[in-house]
Amino acid sequence: MNKLTEHEINFYMNEAIKEAQFAKMIDEVPIGAVVVHDGKIIGRGHNLREHSQDSTTHAEVLAITEACAYLKSWRLWDCQLFVTIEPCLMCSGTIINSQLPQVFFGARDPKAGAVRSLYTVLEDTRLNHQVTVHEGIEADRASMLMKTFFKEIRKRRKKTK
Amino acid sequence: MNKLTEHEINFYMNEAIKEAQFAKMIDEVPIGAVVVHDGKIIGRGHNLREHSQDSTTHAEVLAITEACAYLKSWRLWDCQLFVTIEPCLMCSGTIINSQLPQVFFGARDPKAGAVRSLYTVLEDTRLNHQVTVHEGIEADRASMLMKTFFKEIRKRRKKTK
Repeated sequence: MNKLTEHEINFYMNEAIKEAQFAKMIDEVPIGAVVVHDGKIIGRGHNLREHSQDSTTHAEVLAITEACAYLKSWRLWDCQLFVTIEPCLMCSGTIINSQLPQVFFGARDPKAGAVRSLYTVLEDTRLNHQVTVHEGIEADRASMLMKTFFKEIRKRRKKTK
Repeated sequence: MNKLTEHEINFYMNEAIKEAQFAKMIDEVPIGAVVVHDGKIIGRGHNLREHSQDSTTHAEVLAITEACAYLKSWRLWDCQLFVTIEPCLMCSGTIINSQLPQVFFGARDPKAGAVRSLYTVLEDTRLNHQVTVHEGIEADRASMLMKTFFKEIRKRRKKTK
């Protein structure tokens, strides 16, 4: 697996941020993800929980499912996942189950993050797969998207009261 | 939510075991799950990872997705999940994300179990949802299905060597 350059890392995270912006446009919590294989984006996803009314439709799960379909394999070897916000337990478990070797994320999620905040499951040596984690890529933009989104929701709620 | 009787608990776990047997019949790791709502099974699933080549297709995730579609809601309030083997991190995270209040499982999974063996995430009070856990229901049958499955695989592998 080739080491990604800083330029490439920023490029792919920017694509994940575009996905988060799509989510925001349709009133979903703005989190986006892409899966990269051999320099090509083979899976994309943004949070769709409200539209799908399916608890599994987080950005990472959708991007991973699309990548598995593209490679016709549940093993995402030689792939990288880019996601704007620290993955939760479900998404971290999905990353481990698909044997993804590398994850890049933007901002931490102190309430539900399972990679750095509440747990560090991707690096747990008791499990049969460990993931190399890179954090803080475009963190301010990823975090700002979330903050603005929740601020707008609170404002709307106040108006309707 | 009505408390389930011992008879009901065994009945639903038996349905989860049937799902595990379906998985075994098609050479998938024999784990099965059902989601129950108001005494009715509204989601069923068995492990399909090899057939789907999608890392997310564990029994619990499939049963939960089906239940969300049935209720047209990502919130599985007033539901119970029955699963033959202790859920992994991905499935435990999915249980938390769908706000399922009760989980019944059969046998522990010492290598990947996230409910009792490696983690106890369903009862983590730092998260915004906690789950009541009941373990050991039909554990011997659930565990025997797994043991026989892996024994047969090892036997087949020896033959082809």
